[in-house]
Amino acid sequence: MNMYCPLSPFLIPVILLRMTCYRMTITYDGTAYCGWQVQPNGTTIQELIEQALEVLLKEHLTVHGSGRTDAGVHALAQVAHVHTPGPIDTEKTLMALNGLLPQDIRILDLEAASDHFHARYSATGKEYHYHLTLGRFQDPFARLYSWHVRRRLDVSLLRQGATLFVGTHDFTSFANEAHAGCAAHDAVRTIKRLDVIGDERHLRLEFEGDGFLYRMVRNIVGLLVEVASGKRPTGDIPKLLAAKDRRLAGQAAPSHGLFLVNVFYPQER
Amino acid sequence: MNMYCPLSPFLIPVILLRMTCYRMTITYDGTAYCGWQVQPNGTTIQELIEQALEVLLKEHLTVHGSGRTDAGVHALAQVAHVHTPGPIDTEKTLMALNGLLPQDIRILDLEAASDHFHARYSATGKEYHYHLTLGRFQDPFARLYSWHVRRRLDVSLLRQGATLFVGTHDFTSFANEAHAGCAAHDAVRTIKRLDVIGDERHLRLEFEGDGFLYRMVRNIVGLLVEVASGKRPTGDIPKLLAAKDRRLAGQAAPSHGLFLVNVFYPQER
Repeated sequence: MNMYCPLSPFLIPVILLRMTCYRMTITYDGTAYCGWQVQPNGTTIQELIEQALEVLLKEHLTVHGSGRTDAGVHALAQVAHVHTPGPIDTEKTLMALNGLLPQDIRILDLEAASDHFHARYSATGKEYHYHLTLGRFQDPFARLYSWHVRRRLDVSLLRQGATLFVGTHDFTSFANEAHAGCAAHDAVRTIKRLDVIGDERHLRLEFEGDGFLYRMVRNIVGLLVEVASGKRPTGDIPKLLAAKDRRLAGQAAPSHGLFLVNVFYPQER
Repeated sequence: MNMYCPLSPFLIPVILLRMTCYRMTITYDGTAYCGWQVQPNGTTIQELIEQALEVLLKEHLTVHGSGRTDAGVHALAQVAHVHTPGPIDTEKTLMALNGLLPQDIRILDLEAASDHFHARYSATGKEYHYHLTLGRFQDPFARLYSWHVRRRLDVSLLRQGATLFVGTHDFTSFANEAHAGCAAHDAVRTIKRLDVIGDERHLRLEFEGDGFLYRMVRNIVGLLVEVASGKRPTGDIPKLLAAKDRRLAGQAAPSHGLFLVNVFYPQER
């Protein structure tokens, strides 16, 4: 007997009434969306997953992501959790969710998690990649997935600049306010790795760190492109970090070059 | 003094009135288009390039492609030629064309060609790639650029089948009629190479040959997927080639997995 929702074939009948936590790994092409998080002015990925779950489980449940991604930002492996009113058949639910979701969002994995698991607060780190296309013309196949920089870039300057961000710093100068007047209390973060990989046509900047402030990756990429195109000396980077003033550090790189690639949790590393 | 078109800054003044031939290399994401060739029922790539040229040169000119690509088919390097009423500044025209064209079409190269050059009739061969995504779910980033095959494929059967197409054959069984009642007179073609490259997630079938009949690549891929999924024995392939009957050889693979990668001309090989 299904005690929770007699309408839904996705809930497994259980004896005890208890919430159950599930963890999902999600990939999405962010082009068509107003970002991850539910908001009043446009369709978001979180919203579509919650709607699909509601169709299956006949109940509105909140899906908690590891963090927001902005409009146009993509994910290879966003992680989220959801508490269901009872155990679910993960295999059936996974297939059914993907059947309901549009083709630019796919749940790659759905599994039971500890009740203490929280996609955001349990995360110990994240990996982001930022893609640049160089050269005279944007590759049509990369146009939605990379920033086309026509200026000539000095890749060795880009690499030099990148190393100056690695380590533990106060990143206030590279963090936007997520909401008006709402800056992070503590802007100290550790970038473990910032690798510049690629050739004269495409570059990929791989960021790995314990956490990233709002727009931090895009702000750092924007500055590194200024450095690599000779507009600013690399020596500005330590000065900007020390200044702790967002107004000094120039423009963010556009959202469509950014991919959330991995979210790390304690048991995995 | 510009004798041909006083309105256009793209024509270089010349003394003698003569047509001049230019060759262009074009890349496009075919997702949004009804194929290469101008047609009454939808926007095509040829049409948009002709419109952009008309804006620049103030004259309608016909752009001749190396061949058609169907709706949804992509190109990394389609080749076309155009005769202009006089010499043009290729560098300025190239930049201006790309400024006028939508982001999913880019002219990569524009250069003067011999008056005898014909993008279609001068071609001695072509290279096409067909992309497959395997696995349970389609990768959102590959959804417009590869065919998602959920059935389990035996890649060694796929490779075995592919070798049976290499060489000179009558490909009537693998050619659709381009127009009703209009089959190719001579369906004998040579496939020089049909390589299967990739891993358990993505496969790329690389075709190189002296020419390809209408839908030939997609029809061959459709059949190879049937063979690799165990629906037909590889032994059917020589029988189908011998039968010279399109009705026997099954369904074409969808257009969005297909890329025109290279068009070859005598001086290049």
